[in-house]
Amino acid sequence: MDNHKITEDALSRLNNCDDPRLKEVMTSVITHLHGVVKEVEPTDEEWRQAIDFLTQVGHWCDDRRQEFILLSDTLGVTMLVDTVTQRKPKGVTESTVLGPFHVQGAPKLPFGTNISKDQTGEPTLVTGRVLSQNKLPIAGATVDVWQASAQGLYDVQEPERFPDMNLRAVFHTDKNGRFGFCTEKPASYPVPTDGPVGTMLKALGRHAWRPAHLHFMISAEQHISLTTHLFVKGDPYLESDAVQAVKDSLIVDFSLSHDNAEADQFRLPTPYYKVQEDFVLATAN
Amino acid sequence: MDNHKITEDALSRLNNCDDPRLKEVMTSVITHLHGVVKEVEPTDEEWRQAIDFLTQVGHWCDDRRQEFILLSDTLGVTMLVDTVTQRKPKGVTESTVLGPFHVQGAPKLPFGTNISKDQTGEPTLVTGRVLSQNKLPIAGATVDVWQASAQGLYDVQEPERFPDMNLRAVFHTDKNGRFGFCTEKPASYPVPTDGPVGTMLKALGRHAWRPAHLHFMISAEQHISLTTHLFVKGDPYLESDAVQAVKDSLIVDFSLSHDNAEADQFRLPTPYYKVQEDFVLATAN
Repeated sequence: MDNHKITEDALSRLNNCDDPRLKEVMTSVITHLHGVVKEVEPTDEEWRQAIDFLTQVGHWCDDRRQEFILLSDTLGVTMLVDTVTQRKPKGVTESTVLGPFHVQGAPKLPFGTNISKDQTGEPTLVTGRVLSQNKLPIAGATVDVWQASAQGLYDVQEPERFPDMNLRAVFHTDKNGRFGFCTEKPASYPVPTDGPVGTMLKALGRHAWRPAHLHFMISAEQHISLTTHLFVKGDPYLESDAVQAVKDSLIVDFSLSHDNAEADQFRLPTPYYKVQEDFVLATAN
Repeated sequence: MDNHKITEDALSRLNNCDDPRLKEVMTSVITHLHGVVKEVEPTDEEWRQAIDFLTQVGHWCDDRRQEFILLSDTLGVTMLVDTVTQRKPKGVTESTVLGPFHVQGAPKLPFGTNISKDQTGEPTLVTGRVLSQNKLPIAGATVDVWQASAQGLYDVQEPERFPDMNLRAVFHTDKNGRFGFCTEKPASYPVPTDGPVGTMLKALGRHAWRPAHLHFMISAEQHISLTTHLFVKGDPYLESDAVQAVKDSLIVDFSLSHDNAEADQFRLPTPYYKVQEDFVLATAN
């Protein structure tokens, strides 16, 4: 049997599938899987290596670690899915990956609270508004924020140091659509490299670093929820984010401020970093 | 960032890979993975389902079960790899998949031995020769055989019934290149369906059955080793083998014989099934 016939045969076995979407997806999956085999003509040994790699990735997956998501992230697949699924109207804030570090149930805190429990990093004030497509403020929008520390670690990676939550909170916008909080400036950090994806990155001559960023998940009634980052302008990894999640519109200035009055208002030392960014949500249909 | 740019960016990250073959393979893998996403435009939920499916496949893999190989087999990938890698000269016996049931260290037995321990199935005599490309007999070739029982089960699937090996043996050809053994006629059987691949087959409206067959792994000095099956002519699953491993040239007659003299010689009852097949090995370079 020749190559072409094997692919044709594999596809013909979908004929009795009564789920049209599944049939469409599997047709594409089989065609492209066979496309890889035809292009690279793997030896038995190489095929076996591929099987072993996928098996290892599966074995690294548990409740706290999702190595297949990391694989999808590092091969640009996750961002491609984000792009094909998130075709939003112009003017709406761009989305990016959720990542593996979001935690449900972060504390609901009032405007201006400092979410850094030890406040050892560089002090930072983040303020902004949540707006609808027509640029009107949305009152009562939920702003769920989380981030890595000045050491490039999420609280869940340091459970002894931060048994409760750190650098996470949920805020609600005021009647002018405003939110604001104090924090520490996040640092860039590497994705986990102790598993098979780390081995892959090394074999490919790639670094594992993500540029420093703040995570936001923003939702409001009658609007489409937004999952996005704000990236720190000037970070050395903006051009080479290991998971390709950077979008130019999401890179923001962390500008140094010496405003003593504002520093006093938020109980921050001077100087402090200041980030101002509005988020625009798409209207739900 | 548009779709095209994400793929371009993902591929550009292979630039520092100093293993040209790995770079070639990953270029193809990334291109085709992105091709699937662009074609099917998965929702976040569908992407998550794909991640969960692969994770489950990984979790089903252990020392006795290789669900990723089963996935590769059932999507026609394994046979495609077999075809692209086994481009043998004309006249040489065709190869097919190894499958998951080969066991190292089967007993070395003399010509004519019955490899069925309980001899409850339909008695069968298998004879043949191992030949080189120029059709000359190869003496001392190793003929490793294994098969499912008349109940469609391999010994390793019935460890209580067959703690030692059953329906497995290694023979060596005589000076005329001949080998021969008695056995029971194999039955068709389903691939394992209790895992995620079984769930997939069901969702795709596919059956899990393999047509009845004998397995052979044949090797001889100065020749390329051959892994193949002999399929039972007339089996209802020849056209729809769940792992697409059937090649027409490997379908053989299990013809009923009433030859009392031969039956006596091999201590078989009459009638018995008789299979005669020569295997032609390619010359090693």
